[in-house]
Amino acid sequence: MVMAQPWCFCVMTISLTLFVVVNATTIPPSSQAQQIHDKVGKLPGQNFTINFDHYSGYVTVNEKAGKALFYWFIESDQSPQTKPLLLWFNGGPGCSSIAYGEAEEIGPFHIRPDGKTLYLNPYSWNQVANILFLDSPAGVGFSYSNTSSDIQNNGDKKTAEDSLEFLLRWFERFPQYKGRDVFITGESYAGHYVPQLSQAIVKHNLKNKKNAINLKGYMVGNALTDDVHDHLGVAEFMWSSGLISDQTYKLLNLSCGNQSFVHASDACAQIQGIAYTEIGNIDPYSIFTPPCSANHSQSNQLLRRKLSSRIGKFSEEYDPCTESHSTVYFNLPEVQKALHVDPAHKPAKWEPCSDEVHSNWKDSPKTVLDIYRELIPSGLRIWVFSGDTDAIIPVTSTRYSIAALKLPTVSPWRAWYHDGQVAGWTQGYAGLTFVAVRGAGHEVPLHKPKPALALVKAFLDGTSLPEAELVRSY
Amino acid sequence: MVMAQPWCFCVMTISLTLFVVVNATTIPPSSQAQQIHDKVGKLPGQNFTINFDHYSGYVTVNEKAGKALFYWFIESDQSPQTKPLLLWFNGGPGCSSIAYGEAEEIGPFHIRPDGKTLYLNPYSWNQVANILFLDSPAGVGFSYSNTSSDIQNNGDKKTAEDSLEFLLRWFERFPQYKGRDVFITGESYAGHYVPQLSQAIVKHNLKNKKNAINLKGYMVGNALTDDVHDHLGVAEFMWSSGLISDQTYKLLNLSCGNQSFVHASDACAQIQGIAYTEIGNIDPYSIFTPPCSANHSQSNQLLRRKLSSRIGKFSEEYDPCTESHSTVYFNLPEVQKALHVDPAHKPAKWEPCSDEVHSNWKDSPKTVLDIYRELIPSGLRIWVFSGDTDAIIPVTSTRYSIAALKLPTVSPWRAWYHDGQVAGWTQGYAGLTFVAVRGAGHEVPLHKPKPALALVKAFLDGTSLPEAELVRSY
Repeated sequence: MVMAQPWCFCVMTISLTLFVVVNATTIPPSSQAQQIHDKVGKLPGQNFTINFDHYSGYVTVNEKAGKALFYWFIESDQSPQTKPLLLWFNGGPGCSSIAYGEAEEIGPFHIRPDGKTLYLNPYSWNQVANILFLDSPAGVGFSYSNTSSDIQNNGDKKTAEDSLEFLLRWFERFPQYKGRDVFITGESYAGHYVPQLSQAIVKHNLKNKKNAINLKGYMVGNALTDDVHDHLGVAEFMWSSGLISDQTYKLLNLSCGNQSFVHASDACAQIQGIAYTEIGNIDPYSIFTPPCSANHSQSNQLLRRKLSSRIGKFSEEYDPCTESHSTVYFNLPEVQKALHVDPAHKPAKWEPCSDEVHSNWKDSPKTVLDIYRELIPSGLRIWVFSGDTDAIIPVTSTRYSIAALKLPTVSPWRAWYHDGQVAGWTQGYAGLTFVAVRGAGHEVPLHKPKPALALVKAFLDGTSLPEAELVRSY
Repeated sequence: MVMAQPWCFCVMTISLTLFVVVNATTIPPSSQAQQIHDKVGKLPGQNFTINFDHYSGYVTVNEKAGKALFYWFIESDQSPQTKPLLLWFNGGPGCSSIAYGEAEEIGPFHIRPDGKTLYLNPYSWNQVANILFLDSPAGVGFSYSNTSSDIQNNGDKKTAEDSLEFLLRWFERFPQYKGRDVFITGESYAGHYVPQLSQAIVKHNLKNKKNAINLKGYMVGNALTDDVHDHLGVAEFMWSSGLISDQTYKLLNLSCGNQSFVHASDACAQIQGIAYTEIGNIDPYSIFTPPCSANHSQSNQLLRRKLSSRIGKFSEEYDPCTESHSTVYFNLPEVQKALHVDPAHKPAKWEPCSDEVHSNWKDSPKTVLDIYRELIPSGLRIWVFSGDTDAIIPVTSTRYSIAALKLPTVSPWRAWYHDGQVAGWTQGYAGLTFVAVRGAGHEVPLHKPKPALALVKAFLDGTSLPEAELVRSY
């Protein structure tokens, strides 16, 4: 034991020196100061220690309008300097990536049912990446604009533009991440945001080679992709899972088949309402798990979650009332202070999803498959995954959308394994990998945290998912 | 407390007297002697007391051939004299109703992983009925024939004939059950047996009014019904649940679409083999639960289970290796003795399913929907249920088969509730009730024992399944 001390001391000295050198050469004083300002200390209710740094705050994307986007950046707990940068977006449109992605899916800080104390998510994706959560666009979560009309004029195009602007400015604040491998990920309506931002980055890079963002790929889960195929898949999944009547199945296809998901007609909304009455009080985002409350209300705004009110006591593995806990936690003044939320710009009440943003959404193209077709030849790594017990954007929708791309198969359909069990199924196409996650709902990392971590690790490493040797008798 | 004694004594006296009177007037001495012979005492490994009687033994259905069917009759634990008689059949063809129905589904005696001790199934259907399990036809379980060619010439027609003959003779042995309300139930390939036996009984009753069987209705679960629609449903369910590739989906429809389920062509069997390779090592009878073993073999004889070899330790609620425990238990000489198995006629090795019976199956009509059409006007109560996570005879197959009957709807599709949760969905047709059981596999009472008990209770009572008032906001 005595012999170990000089060696330990020596290693520590070298590490500290390296750290100072790297910082001194890459981070200008103004950025250093901003980082120090944004650095988050121990969070309220955090009674565990962590071995990673994390930062939160605003990045102004439009000075004139006074539009600023709120981010939470969580470094990897293992060698952050060698890990890629992973952006995560949630959907809605109108929902906070912090409410869902951070607090109940891939982030390290999850919230207990008391709404006041935290626990460390043992399957946080910051084990394999530095994660950047962005409340996008303005009006969502803690992101704001001083120009109130901005909130009522959000849409896909503006979201992509502002997200790109955010990212460029964020790299100015965190220049040590410039040139780092970047992967953009998200779920649900982020099926629009993720390829749209990827496209915007690719276009930016063509014009700004010196200030390029080193985008390596994107991945979406249970993603809105193509309205026609998505509607087709929803109706078929609902019917084949035994959720709705034969008649409603037919009417869903008739009334919704060619509709926009975000701007559906009254006739489509009406038959969707009938479908949800037939389904009864299950969680359509995860059809086999108990819903938060026996009497919670369900929205026919299919891409967003309504806040559930019951605060129950559940295991840390899966808690159907987790949105309620977030709503308590992120409204606590001490939490907002710790996260550097500006009292002058904080929302009257923090909510996981903004109704105002959702109901005033402008442009929402009926498909983003054209962006896939444009980006696949660029060599980006593109993965599309699907939790197979989600009735909102089900696995059938994703399969129809991918089939519409007519891509050649490069590795045939097969099961993939995790912990000795079938974790799902995968097929490799030229330029795109499909992954189903068995028994997972709309929020895959919420329902299947361990396989989800294995999935993102394979995605980031560019490796294929584990395959088991099977003994079969035919 | 002192006052209660005379009252108690009085009631007991009356009860005993009544019992003697009923027995004396209705059961002839020969039947009484046979009942006494068949009465089962405490079973090996039964370390709990029970408050019901049960009987097992053989009923000869053909003296010349020496063909005898083995039954296990378990009376209700609550007022057996007022409860209906419920027959339960399993499928295969070739599988034992005692192995599945009694020991892992609806019977009271379930087997622990040691294969030696029993526990009392808290959701046994003998809470609501007197249950008669029949190993059917000869060659299955403990049923036998001294004419060995019988075993290799089984088929639907003979099964129905022998089952009717069994039932008529069984009523001679248990005359106190003559005239009792009878309900015939079963799952899987019993989707053939149950309506076929019902049809045989109806025909018998027309000719033998004095010796009529008081058949009130039948109920089948995940039932093979109509080969064309069943194949269509299997392929669609496998695809929409994300189990198989787009290509295999198409090929299943092409190669199997018009095939017999039991006598499929080589081309169909080949593509089914590819489908099962793509699916990987999941339990196709229950796609979201862990299979018994990580390396067990799967059969492409879709309607029967292959024995799984691993004996694990699982909770009593659901044990994927339960067949293995039965195989140990029912091969114990002391168990066979307790159940009155004749050593001279016992199988060399008791197995849950007989390969010999299965592979030599003769007539298997491609549909039994014609029997539904024939029996519906007779006013029988007909219920069809489906566990919705079964890929063998999935909910889609059942829906296609029912739709083919083109019956008018009398109560529209809605969710039904148990323990405050959606337990499934139901729709009432003129003459037939459909019930889906949420999250249940092929063996509904194995996976969802509580809702299954509620389901059979409603079926026997002829009541509709519980409906919850829902608060909705649209």
